[in-house]
Amino acid sequence: MGSTDALLRSVANPRDMKEIEVEQVAESDLDDPVFVEGLPGVGHVGKLVAEHLIEETDSTLLARVYSEHFPPQVGIDDSGVANLAHAELYAVPTDGRDLIVLTGDHQAGDNTGQYRLSETFLDESERLGAERVYSLGGVPTGELIEEYSVLGAVSSEALIDDLEAAGVEFRSEEPTGGIVGTSGLLLGLGSRRGLEAVCLMGETSGYLVDPKSARAVLDVLQERLEFDIPVEALDDRADEMEEVISKLQDMEAAQSPSSGEDLRYIG
Amino acid sequence: MGSTDALLRSVANPRDMKEIEVEQVAESDLDDPVFVEGLPGVGHVGKLVAEHLIEETDSTLLARVYSEHFPPQVGIDDSGVANLAHAELYAVPTDGRDLIVLTGDHQAGDNTGQYRLSETFLDESERLGAERVYSLGGVPTGELIEEYSVLGAVSSEALIDDLEAAGVEFRSEEPTGGIVGTSGLLLGLGSRRGLEAVCLMGETSGYLVDPKSARAVLDVLQERLEFDIPVEALDDRADEMEEVISKLQDMEAAQSPSSGEDLRYIG
Amino acid sequence: MGSTDALLRSVANPRDMKEIEVEQVAESDLDDPVFVEGLPGVGHVGKLVAEHLIEETDSTLLARVYSEHFPPQVGIDDSGVANLAHAELYAVPTDGRDLIVLTGDHQAGDNTGQYRLSETFLDESERLGAERVYSLGGVPTGELIEEYSVLGAVSSEALIDDLEAAGVEFRSEEPTGGIVGTSGLLLGLGSRRGLEAVCLMGETSGYLVDPKSARAVLDVLQERLEFDIPVEALDDRADEMEEVISKLQDMEAAQSPSSGEDLRYIG
Amino acid sequence: MGSTDALLRSVANPRDMKEIEVEQVAESDLDDPVFVEGLPGVGHVGKLVAEHLIEETDSTLLARVYSEHFPPQVGIDDSGVANLAHAELYAVPTDGRDLIVLTGDHQAGDNTGQYRLSETFLDESERLGAERVYSLGGVPTGELIEEYSVLGAVSSEALIDDLEAAGVEFRSEEPTGGIVGTSGLLLGLGSRRGLEAVCLMGETSGYLVDPKSARAVLDVLQERLEFDIPVEALDDRADEMEEVISKLQDMEAAQSPSSGEDLRYIG
Repeated sequence: MGSTDALLRSVANPRDMKEIEVEQVAESDLDDPVFVEGLPGVGHVGKLVAEHLIEETDSTLLARVYSEHFPPQVGIDDSGVANLAHAELYAVPTDGRDLIVLTGDHQAGDNTGQYRLSETFLDESERLGAERVYSLGGVPTGELIEEYSVLGAVSSEALIDDLEAAGVEFRSEEPTGGIVGTSGLLLGLGSRRGLEAVCLMGETSGYLVDPKSARAVLDVLQERLEFDIPVEALDDRADEMEEVISKLQDMEAAQSPSSGEDLRYIG
Repeated sequence: MGSTDALLRSVANPRDMKEIEVEQVAESDLDDPVFVEGLPGVGHVGKLVAEHLIEETDSTLLARVYSEHFPPQVGIDDSGVANLAHAELYAVPTDGRDLIVLTGDHQAGDNTGQYRLSETFLDESERLGAERVYSLGGVPTGELIEEYSVLGAVSSEALIDDLEAAGVEFRSEEPTGGIVGTSGLLLGLGSRRGLEAVCLMGETSGYLVDPKSARAVLDVLQERLEFDIPVEALDDRADEMEEVISKLQDMEAAQSPSSGEDLRYIG
Repeated sequence: MGSTDALLRSVANPRDMKEIEVEQVAESDLDDPVFVEGLPGVGHVGKLVAEHLIEETDSTLLARVYSEHFPPQVGIDDSGVANLAHAELYAVPTDGRDLIVLTGDHQAGDNTGQYRLSETFLDESERLGAERVYSLGGVPTGELIEEYSVLGAVSSEALIDDLEAAGVEFRSEEPTGGIVGTSGLLLGLGSRRGLEAVCLMGETSGYLVDPKSARAVLDVLQERLEFDIPVEALDDRADEMEEVISKLQDMEAAQSPSSGEDLRYIG
Repeated sequence: MGSTDALLRSVANPRDMKEIEVEQVAESDLDDPVFVEGLPGVGHVGKLVAEHLIEETDSTLLARVYSEHFPPQVGIDDSGVANLAHAELYAVPTDGRDLIVLTGDHQAGDNTGQYRLSETFLDESERLGAERVYSLGGVPTGELIEEYSVLGAVSSEALIDDLEAAGVEFRSEEPTGGIVGTSGLLLGLGSRRGLEAVCLMGETSGYLVDPKSARAVLDVLQERLEFDIPVEALDDRADEMEEVISKLQDMEAAQSPSSGEDLRYIG
């Protein structure tokens, strides 16, 4: 149908959106910065750290990254204004080492998109002068955490000593199954470019947003990169979450009067 | 196998169908029209409004948009004639503001296709002279609706006052999770092109096709764009649906004689 | 890792397999043939007819179509020789109208692949002189069939009378949900090329391979295209299947001694 | 949003990673080698053989193959160093026929990627002088194996006699459903290039990593390609696995004291 009554036929050549687009908002004047990634993931650990860094410093939005590999979606801000799915790069000056921080609400929805967006993030961070990459995330333990360890993975064995001195643990072949998503690719692709790349993973139950795990990762980051920012906001969020957990445990205890040991697990 | 007994080998270069094709059926003579989208979605709210606009005016089919991102599918009309999956653009003249209305039976099946088709729809609507975009949809509440509110999201805060005057509600960071699919992308991508873009979302239970929610969205649209078309057909469909719901509630009441409050929820 | 100890780096440019490849095996000398498609689908109705046409005539394999849109898979023949996933085109001469028959074990695994392979099949059939397309399939009814109706869908209303004369039924907007997959696309894309395209769908329970439904479709095809081939082999398969169904019903009857009416439904 | 406050806009052109990349690590000096593939699959049979060949010989890593079709993932080695998802090609000299062995932790995540990576593997093995391809895998039986048969599939019937002489079984149209993934494609695509291609599949329950099945495949491979390497390591792993199975059976016996026949099935 259609071929007889058609007056014209044209092949669409969509005008605006490319596969990946970097919209530069401001120039950076950071000197020898370190690239830090915190996108959504297990326990939102990486994203919590990234947002904290942006909020607690005199940060500047440098660029937005759009891509047709992101979900076809807009977010709505508090006044009702929509923003197309994207990731954001911020200049984050500190009293010590300056940072370029990547955060956002999405990861790519397909393998190819994950690779290409990660390469774009590395391209941008290199253009901004970064030769070191820290990707941040959580590693799920399946049970509530008593002591918030931070696991590490690196592009080169030479990096391990300094990280261990800053409190990072290295465990043989952990996390089992490797590191999936942008955090893993920034490490793997960064390494192939000859960058110094580190992934810091806060242990977290995996069931809840975990500001305590984020605090542990932030501590290591501050120690290693020698800067110091206020941590109260993150601790406040941790306290709020403690209360939520405590209430959940009370509810569970009321429902099933079993041993206290079991209550530590939220399934 | 095959390499020994093959006489010839050729690489196929499929002849006809491009990634996206716009088949122009008629020229538009609309002056300064507004682009209105109503594809299938929650409660079919957007599609109901779009179809109503097309049926109740002296509308003209302007173009069909085909794409290999649509499902590999044909629809069958009432005489048995097949039509390849596509979207349609109509010229919809009114007594006030003229409209270009997009409707159809499908959205793209993949992220990339969603982005590219939305860009194509914007290309076409811009070519037809539209500088304002209204995407229509439903927002699910999970329970039967008493009062049919219409939520809004916009490309720019400057648009909010006029929309609120027309009865649109703006709620901070709602809908939670943003707006997914073509309605969201027309808003997000339209905004990036500098177009004035609005998404109107009728509250709906999310369980049923909802002509009442469509009526609420249509009312807002007429108020805002200053036109007036008959609404009886939509009200008739709403009455029919009311009867269906009423029967469902009676059946539910007969089966489980619990409190009247519960009956308002169809799960 | 890797960048330091690598001697060389090369970008792979895979040599052989294109997105779609047509391997021509023989030339056709058919005059004004009709293109008939029977790939796997509901009740394997289309594939049963296609295979029967190939087996009961002096057919010749014309071409194999390979594609990276097919599953990454080989089939194994009865002597242990592997063959890469592909579709096959046969020249099928009859006492009346000659046919080009498409069959195989796979459909494409993604939307884009479905469109591109269907275009390739149409390219090939046009190159071989066919201007008429018959795609064959089954339409699921959800219950055992007493009378094997054949539903039709067409590219143009002008085709309906002759098909009804050959026993095809046309029901308004049926099959609901349209026709999905290669059978639907050959109809939709064929129509856009200006070809005369028909889809014949044998009613079938949808639970079992259905040679009786295939027989009904074959009868219509023979009547419409005026040819006559032996049908005994298809009837023998139908008889075997009847026995299987009869045994299943006996087993069901033994297990749940309910009314005879219910036994006609195999769920 | 964004279009008003943006200073600059650039389209990203990711710098480093291509669709598929071959990173050459060393030159091969093998003479007329045979290409052997053992990627992860049913019972990890193929991978166990490939790893055993690499470990028990004076093997050399020749190349790593990276691809955006692999999962977006890094693995972590025993010292905490990350490596980007990849496959590896090794030169494996033996006392008889030399081998090029392909192994790794991943297969491509999409159909197209499977085809393109398999073509790349064949390109590389041909460049290294191989004209014969052996892909290794497991075929699931659904029950514990008493006698470890090795099934074969070939590019050409002429290969069957020699393989049967080496202990390979050929069963009509088995494995049912063909061979899926890289092992199947190397056979199918290798055959289309005119290469001599064989797939050896060790029977395995499909529930556990199966070193005994790997041993059976290795025996056939050694017999057919006339080389001889130590097998103790593989037998030790088989013994360990036997113990695991034995314990599982004891546990099952303790839980459900039914007939001994049933205990042979681990579901």
